[in-house]
Amino acid sequence: MFQKGTLGESGGGKIMKFVLIPDSFKGTLSSVQICKITAEKIREHFPDSEITEIPVADGGEGSVDAFLFALGGEKVNVKVKNPYFEDMDSYFGLLDEGKTAVVEMASCAGLPLVEKRKNPKLATTYGVGQLMVEAAKRGVEKIIVGLGGSATNDGGCGAAAAAGVKFYNKEGKEFIPTGGTVIDIERIDLSGMNEVFKNIELIAMCDIDNPMYGPFGASYVFAPQKGADAECVEELDEGMKNLSRVITRTIGKDIGEMPGTGAAGAMGAGMVAFFNAKLQMGIQTVLDTVKFDEKIADADYIFTGEGKLDSQSLRGKVVMGIAKRAQEQEKKVIAVVGGAEDKNIKEAYCMGVTAVFPINRLPQDFSVSRQYSVENLSCTVDNILRLLK
Amino acid sequence: MFQKGTLGESGGGKIMKFVLIPDSFKGTLSSVQICKITAEKIREHFPDSEITEIPVADGGEGSVDAFLFALGGEKVNVKVKNPYFEDMDSYFGLLDEGKTAVVEMASCAGLPLVEKRKNPKLATTYGVGQLMVEAAKRGVEKIIVGLGGSATNDGGCGAAAAAGVKFYNKEGKEFIPTGGTVIDIERIDLSGMNEVFKNIELIAMCDIDNPMYGPFGASYVFAPQKGADAECVEELDEGMKNLSRVITRTIGKDIGEMPGTGAAGAMGAGMVAFFNAKLQMGIQTVLDTVKFDEKIADADYIFTGEGKLDSQSLRGKVVMGIAKRAQEQEKKVIAVVGGAEDKNIKEAYCMGVTAVFPINRLPQDFSVSRQYSVENLSCTVDNILRLLK
Repeated sequence: MFQKGTLGESGGGKIMKFVLIPDSFKGTLSSVQICKITAEKIREHFPDSEITEIPVADGGEGSVDAFLFALGGEKVNVKVKNPYFEDMDSYFGLLDEGKTAVVEMASCAGLPLVEKRKNPKLATTYGVGQLMVEAAKRGVEKIIVGLGGSATNDGGCGAAAAAGVKFYNKEGKEFIPTGGTVIDIERIDLSGMNEVFKNIELIAMCDIDNPMYGPFGASYVFAPQKGADAECVEELDEGMKNLSRVITRTIGKDIGEMPGTGAAGAMGAGMVAFFNAKLQMGIQTVLDTVKFDEKIADADYIFTGEGKLDSQSLRGKVVMGIAKRAQEQEKKVIAVVGGAEDKNIKEAYCMGVTAVFPINRLPQDFSVSRQYSVENLSCTVDNILRLLK
Repeated sequence: MFQKGTLGESGGGKIMKFVLIPDSFKGTLSSVQICKITAEKIREHFPDSEITEIPVADGGEGSVDAFLFALGGEKVNVKVKNPYFEDMDSYFGLLDEGKTAVVEMASCAGLPLVEKRKNPKLATTYGVGQLMVEAAKRGVEKIIVGLGGSATNDGGCGAAAAAGVKFYNKEGKEFIPTGGTVIDIERIDLSGMNEVFKNIELIAMCDIDNPMYGPFGASYVFAPQKGADAECVEELDEGMKNLSRVITRTIGKDIGEMPGTGAAGAMGAGMVAFFNAKLQMGIQTVLDTVKFDEKIADADYIFTGEGKLDSQSLRGKVVMGIAKRAQEQEKKVIAVVGGAEDKNIKEAYCMGVTAVFPINRLPQDFSVSRQYSVENLSCTVDNILRLLK
């Protein structure tokens, strides 16, 4: 009885446990930054607390670092091909005592690598395949490939080629297809696939649900930001349709309209068709990988958040995904967000979010307030903690 | 021991006590509205709680209603003169079992009463004096006069005349001075002051510190919004200087530069010179009148707030004034605000504010967000309460 009373008291001798698992605030704050700012404030108000920081990797640039930040592990450097088949230094992450590898597509096929020479007809995912092979050689049980931020539109053919898959044109000549030449694929031979992938579980993290081709496909929706003009987009889309047809012939299954196959220049399709990977929502991948359910077992408060609380977009389901798991253990979930519509806040409560706090200190347009994201976040967390003390 | 442990537990059977004492959010929400929205949310989350609602009167329009809302009492209707000496229905409030009267200057000398015929040279505070006389006749011990929102610039001469003070010009002719004719005052005779004011404490609520005349005086700062053009402002200011001189001759004391005498068309000066009133910050008047210290003795949380947390302006000291008193009893003070600068938030903590929550759900400019003030306030309070549960 006494014991319980003591535990129930706030500000007593009890060590508080916080789990921080924020998504990034797109364009202003990375999830690692948000973790650091939040943790700093917690240490200020609860010096003896335990803090678990899990920045949510979104599959794009920084995902390997986010996983390593959350779980520790090793960053393995590898020389691979960049989007234009030139040598470059890239990396993957080894987590969970070497049982899990994280490959971040953007690390060797990312748009920032080719900023001044963007060309989705020429860019390749070859290096991504090399990273996967290197990771597999480490004897991992699972490889997580973060899709996102790519400069490519090759349907993952480059990555597959690096792993031993062979592509032939009408003349029976082998080649490594890129965005501009997937249209020429006549036959795909999977028999040379590197044996190293046997018995490895492959997960492709992906938060978009676009199909391979068509008006909502990889080329039409994402190629323009990779440097494609209208004519080029049409060519790329025709190429994707061809790839889809040949894949269907090869694996006996049509995945062209499977949601997510259009992700990252249809890398999603390649991951499914050539690597037999599972497409998975980023947040579910993160929650599984960090063993979220165990981590929160003795937590007092879970802090999460995202740029805009939005249940409509796949990407916007981070907070909801976290809350749902937390709800099963009746944990308090505080969402600190860049902004939130009324309907999304109400839905958040149903999903298990305890309270939602937007960070806007002043009534300012985003064009103004974005400059103050660090201060605004810090101030909001500070006040929440003052209330919890 | 057990008793204490039980009380310390949240969510137990304990009845929570909330005191709500918000300032208005200027231009968007009245303090009564804020009380109602907050109370509604509290009843939703803590159905058995006790809620004390004290909307902060600012001395302007609505002050009588705010006091009556907070304390109960009687609204007494009185026929008096409007700013142009025409008959109108006005009112004052009787609180505290008839011991205290609240007169709101704006109720019979307010700008909205003369919206289409604004003229600070002609407008009078005569009706205010009538209200004070009527209130005094009720046998009250104290009269609080809310200064603010006035259409006048008569230095309170009209009100004084209604109370028996006599004003004479150079020719020895008695008249009731208005803004345009205070320049003609040669002599003031206080001997006819209504005896009914004997032994009544007079308080003038006032949140500005402007003097009677000069560049920061009543005429230069406030007359333009009452309809004065540049030439008129100069004339009014000359009049104020004359009134100040004659007051000095009459009461043997120069109050021309006393902070606050310039309030409400220099009604502040008239209150001091003719009625021997004390100029007092609105929030202190409210806290004293509602017996704030007693009211919060067993409160768990005090909710306050203002449009913009701002320690620089007198008006902006509402939250700070409340927090200071609450701090003496180590009470938790939650400030829900329209906006807050970093430095003001930090100062607020020092003054005893537990936590500050701005209501901006989305990064929107005030021109946009002001339309959503009700929802934004409601949502913010809702989330704070969810966290407190």
